[in-house]
Amino acid sequence: MLQPPPARPGMPEDEVDTPALLIDLDAFEANLDTMAGRLAGTNVRLRAHAKTHKSPVIAHRQIARGAIGQCVQKVAEAEALAWGGVGDILVSNEVVGGPKLARLAALAGIATVAVCTDDAGQVAALEAAARDAGIRLSVLVEIDVGGSRCGVAPGGEAVALARAIAASKHLRFGGLQAYHGRAQHLRKPEERHFAIAACVDDTRRTVEQLRQQGLDCPIVGGAGTGTFEHELASGVFTELQAGSYCFMDADYGRNLDTQGKPVSTFRNALFVLATVMSAPRPGIAVTDTGHKAVAIDSGMPLVWQRPDIRFTSASDEHGKLEFGPETTAPKIGEKLRLVPGHCDPTVDRFDWYVGVRGGRVECLWPIAARGGTY
Amino acid sequence: MLQPPPARPGMPEDEVDTPALLIDLDAFEANLDTMAGRLAGTNVRLRAHAKTHKSPVIAHRQIARGAIGQCVQKVAEAEALAWGGVGDILVSNEVVGGPKLARLAALAGIATVAVCTDDAGQVAALEAAARDAGIRLSVLVEIDVGGSRCGVAPGGEAVALARAIAASKHLRFGGLQAYHGRAQHLRKPEERHFAIAACVDDTRRTVEQLRQQGLDCPIVGGAGTGTFEHELASGVFTELQAGSYCFMDADYGRNLDTQGKPVSTFRNALFVLATVMSAPRPGIAVTDTGHKAVAIDSGMPLVWQRPDIRFTSASDEHGKLEFGPETTAPKIGEKLRLVPGHCDPTVDRFDWYVGVRGGRVECLWPIAARGGTY
Repeated sequence: MLQPPPARPGMPEDEVDTPALLIDLDAFEANLDTMAGRLAGTNVRLRAHAKTHKSPVIAHRQIARGAIGQCVQKVAEAEALAWGGVGDILVSNEVVGGPKLARLAALAGIATVAVCTDDAGQVAALEAAARDAGIRLSVLVEIDVGGSRCGVAPGGEAVALARAIAASKHLRFGGLQAYHGRAQHLRKPEERHFAIAACVDDTRRTVEQLRQQGLDCPIVGGAGTGTFEHELASGVFTELQAGSYCFMDADYGRNLDTQGKPVSTFRNALFVLATVMSAPRPGIAVTDTGHKAVAIDSGMPLVWQRPDIRFTSASDEHGKLEFGPETTAPKIGEKLRLVPGHCDPTVDRFDWYVGVRGGRVECLWPIAARGGTY
Repeated sequence: MLQPPPARPGMPEDEVDTPALLIDLDAFEANLDTMAGRLAGTNVRLRAHAKTHKSPVIAHRQIARGAIGQCVQKVAEAEALAWGGVGDILVSNEVVGGPKLARLAALAGIATVAVCTDDAGQVAALEAAARDAGIRLSVLVEIDVGGSRCGVAPGGEAVALARAIAASKHLRFGGLQAYHGRAQHLRKPEERHFAIAACVDDTRRTVEQLRQQGLDCPIVGGAGTGTFEHELASGVFTELQAGSYCFMDADYGRNLDTQGKPVSTFRNALFVLATVMSAPRPGIAVTDTGHKAVAIDSGMPLVWQRPDIRFTSASDEHGKLEFGPETTAPKIGEKLRLVPGHCDPTVDRFDWYVGVRGGRVECLWPIAARGGTY
């Protein structure tokens, strides 16, 4: 069921019904500008990750500021973006299964699409799908640069896979996918530095080995919001795949800078608006936002600008707030902005973004790729 | 975006695209029959909780077997059910805010609706909403019987609130809502017994105090899948609000019976179908099901009928499987059924149920209330 949006343009923020997903447009646009500014004058491009925002509207705003295109994690996201007019899409993930590959190949008529692989048997499947669709499909080799999830080992294994792609009539070797997921939330800057230094070494030597085999990498992609400055400085990566930067969240807010303070490059721009619906005992209030409204995989949300109120636990449809006797107790009906623990899966709980500026609703953007499960 | 279903009727189960939400129809129907059989011949009715299934199709199957109606947790769920023809709906939760109350009152034209309260100020808001809609609204008092979430204290506070409801021109005192959420997953049967014994005592004395004030309770509701046998036996509850029983999950599978074995009253009937999309290293496989496809708030999923394969971690779109050298490694492209850790929020990740029987897809049911956030 697609509900209508919980707000109308012009409405004051405090009349937005809840739970609702708010974008603070000033902060959001500042984040887009900040990232674009970081890459300006470099030869590295942003391929912003749509796994975070799931929206062609946002994709176009990133592309207008210089992003080369978008990353997605799945075919449903590629479809939502391509059907929304995004022209260059990398599935920064492996896609397995004939039906999924046929849908991906079908997008090649309206967008440049590329996908990753980490398996020789899957190269054959990709070749068959591209052949059946009458296209040439760009395929990147994913290498495991510390994430310990998908990906072949850097070096010889990656080269063998790249050669198999290059030898396939309907495929094109697209380069390397080298994303270190586990490094993104390392808290200390030196930890992130060393993790990405190792990732960069692995990636660089793989690029060189490929070059020795006559295989150039059109794309060397990776990086996330937590580490992108390191990949940017490396001279190895051609594109950065940061997603969360546009919104930020409480978990990224716990990454520290070299002064030991929370990294403040980007601003909190995404909030779940909640209503206090019960105030049953002193020191306790309950909101209408449980984990069906705000993802808790990376920790509880924070109550925006209320460090004196802790969001201590979530059930499916209720969030428990706790506070001390010195705090003015939140009242039933009061609305609070929550900073989600993890922005990506929180976006995936909603069908609409409510864009607010100056205390009023300015726009309503559909979260187009939400609901695309396969 | 509402994707079409990932399957077509008649399709073999192993051709269903993934991630997909499967109902094993034989197990599901057995669960509905088992619960109906437990209540047959008693004077206690099932008011099955739609927070689990979010589907008028399933609601009607429960009602056909004797359920008195449905519970929901929010107005969006009440709308989905009422618009789907369900005639008797209790919002087993507080609803706060004029717009939400107006939507709830608007349903009174097509269904019997009731709601809970735990606050005198909110009684006035409910009265105003009912008056504005020209209806009489049934309102239950929620009492805190150990869940430590919403609800007034049993006894005098509850009586005062009930009197305020009864004195309101456009409200009707509907009874008591006495749900002990924290007892549902107590692992030992004696723990559940004692928790509900205290809950029953609190509820019984509140009912008696109300009767002394001339206030009868049309409904005394509560219970969940973990504890319902206790509320059933109490002689105090008129209706049981179990939801998960129709599907079960891995977390409920860890509740023990008096023999120290997992409670086996109900069968696992809900599965997330996953595809292995990467097999990068010995002892590791990766599925296309992260926590955007299967809720992990109550623990990782189990791999159905594969105790030799452990689902050890989930990122947003990937699930990591680990297994020993003696296990036949899952192959890329292989499909596995996962038993979700927690069924309710897992249902909320999907738009479609794929009903399977005898190895084939029999039906596709929309998860109508998914996407209803406010």
